[in-house]
Amino acid sequence: MENFDVAIVGGGLIGCSIAFELSKENLRVIVLDRQQPGLEASWAAAGMLSPAPHSPQDVTLVPLAKESLRLYPEFVREIEECSATRVGYAQKSAFHIFFGSNGEAERDIMISENKRLGLNCESASVSDALKSEKALTSEMSAAALLSNEGSVEPRLLMEAILIANRNRGVEIRSDFNATSLVVDRGRCTGIRGNGGVIAAKQVVMAAGCFSGSIISETKGFPGGLPVRPVRGQMVALSAPSVALHRVLRSHRGYLVPRADGRIVAGSTLEEAGFEKRVTAEGIRHILDSAIELCPGLRKAEVLETWCGLRPGTPDNLPILGPTECEGLIAATGHYRNGILLAPITARLVREWIVQGRTTFDATVFSPLRFKEFRSEAVHTTR
Amino acid sequence: MENFDVAIVGGGLIGCSIAFELSKENLRVIVLDRQQPGLEASWAAAGMLSPAPHSPQDVTLVPLAKESLRLYPEFVREIEECSATRVGYAQKSAFHIFFGSNGEAERDIMISENKRLGLNCESASVSDALKSEKALTSEMSAAALLSNEGSVEPRLLMEAILIANRNRGVEIRSDFNATSLVVDRGRCTGIRGNGGVIAAKQVVMAAGCFSGSIISETKGFPGGLPVRPVRGQMVALSAPSVALHRVLRSHRGYLVPRADGRIVAGSTLEEAGFEKRVTAEGIRHILDSAIELCPGLRKAEVLETWCGLRPGTPDNLPILGPTECEGLIAATGHYRNGILLAPITARLVREWIVQGRTTFDATVFSPLRFKEFRSEAVHTTR
Repeated sequence: MENFDVAIVGGGLIGCSIAFELSKENLRVIVLDRQQPGLEASWAAAGMLSPAPHSPQDVTLVPLAKESLRLYPEFVREIEECSATRVGYAQKSAFHIFFGSNGEAERDIMISENKRLGLNCESASVSDALKSEKALTSEMSAAALLSNEGSVEPRLLMEAILIANRNRGVEIRSDFNATSLVVDRGRCTGIRGNGGVIAAKQVVMAAGCFSGSIISETKGFPGGLPVRPVRGQMVALSAPSVALHRVLRSHRGYLVPRADGRIVAGSTLEEAGFEKRVTAEGIRHILDSAIELCPGLRKAEVLETWCGLRPGTPDNLPILGPTECEGLIAATGHYRNGILLAPITARLVREWIVQGRTTFDATVFSPLRFKEFRSEAVHTTR
Repeated sequence: MENFDVAIVGGGLIGCSIAFELSKENLRVIVLDRQQPGLEASWAAAGMLSPAPHSPQDVTLVPLAKESLRLYPEFVREIEECSATRVGYAQKSAFHIFFGSNGEAERDIMISENKRLGLNCESASVSDALKSEKALTSEMSAAALLSNEGSVEPRLLMEAILIANRNRGVEIRSDFNATSLVVDRGRCTGIRGNGGVIAAKQVVMAAGCFSGSIISETKGFPGGLPVRPVRGQMVALSAPSVALHRVLRSHRGYLVPRADGRIVAGSTLEEAGFEKRVTAEGIRHILDSAIELCPGLRKAEVLETWCGLRPGTPDNLPILGPTECEGLIAATGHYRNGILLAPITARLVREWIVQGRTTFDATVFSPLRFKEFRSEAVHTTR
């Protein structure tokens, strides 16, 4: 039986970021995935780095998101250096575009809410917005400029962090279908799967929307980690005549420009189980909102359509931190924010493992807030 | 130099149907394509077999379309028998669905026009339409039932006719990029390409929207055959909960059910040159009209998006018959009707080659109607 300091279940950006962070600590780390890592939610993401709240629930998330965005430049620098690969990181403002007769009022609410949360958000006149982004529609009624934003290319970032981890000595398994935790006298001592048992002093559950099914198969976790898939569909467009300089958003969708000129348009929020399918309504909605933002995209080539399964939770906030099962740390449920929250999640998990406490108060994201999970975990035996 | 009785330029359904028809006459026939035959407009087609006029120009086409539809059962029987392959042929009525307050008036016009042209077209009450097609929208304002209709699966038909041709001894070349006609003292004696020269007593130009460029490169055909690409985009949907029994059409689009449950939704008519691209606006339009016809398709999986280049002509009627260049017959420009018109086109070309005259008067489709082509062709020398 192989023995590790830390076994990370799930090789998406969260799992790989934690592994990369832990690799600095001289720990023996293994990342376990049932397939080539990074092909689920990380691969599907648009890569917007936006700490601004996109729903009332997000308000709780803003401090964590801001801290993670602050860490991003260094996070990217280390990965690019260690992988000799670029990840398409851009620190740029974003425009939020409003339509209809209430547009100005909606903009003012957004500005005051963002300012209250310590985020830069300013009014932009329609003519100024049109001047900076010539592809924008003149049909908008108002615009807000958010300067605490950025974007990254998740597929490039995944490739780079896998290389970086290998260069740092992290072991990566792409054939390990984790099925249950190994729990001995209430302590998690490893992970069981079709590839046998991996023994580890610490297990980190970072399997996104699949986290629940892995833990639920272990005796004593009858409810499982309460993570569910929330489908998001995406479209990649190519329109040489439409040059975007930053992320454009509306209440209906968003456009993220890539360095190679492609434009990634999203998205949907769908409760559709584990069905990874693009649908007529989903693609239509995304194309509608893309064309509404930039009418020049009518003629854009549809290069690719795809979807991913975000890990949603009952409050759609991440599940971060030690569980009542000693040796098991949760780092999952990042919902729409996995790419943005990777650096802070990695730092928090390192601190929990190495120092037993964190420099950022993440109590509100503790798995202990989900009673069922907590109340059962303490009775677990092998 | 190889010597054939007939060389057919273009291995789409038109070219292959002509070859199949000629193979009954003990002639040495070759089909020339620059790639695997059947991957252009034939592969992209929906496969509706509808002789009903879809635009005012189509009225001229109706007699030819009706005759071709009459030939279809025997055409399919021979190909299926000779290939031991099924081609998804179905003789079924189609519904045309009308929306809005003018729906009933529009339906009455369609019915009287179809009847005048000798086509069956009857009014169907909304409740009867909903009874026979449960997936139809209840938002329609009127419906017409067209019983002179059918459908076929173009990709299956292409596969089958290629097998059938090979079984009948037709030679098929998939590496011959035709570049110009060989013309000797005003007579076409072969075709020149990157694969050398193919000598033939008769050359049939059946290269769809590419026909123009091949002939234009020959001295004396400065205008070329006036065929241009008219792009059509398509979407294949899968929705187990939506079962269609026949083709559904509206003024905006159509749905063609396949035997395996897939639904092919179309289409667009675009002047976009030879750019084979699916676009944001095109796909959105198709999904809009599909969902308008059958709201249950909202949840349908988008299986595939693609497009093809229909061969349009100045009057969007086909170019059929002998040219003033002896030995050169045109069988191209079938625009939206290539699949439907394959049997009659094949019969006409056989009759021109074997008998020198046809049993169906196709004068109106003669290439001689395009003056530029005619006036230059007679002066051609090698």
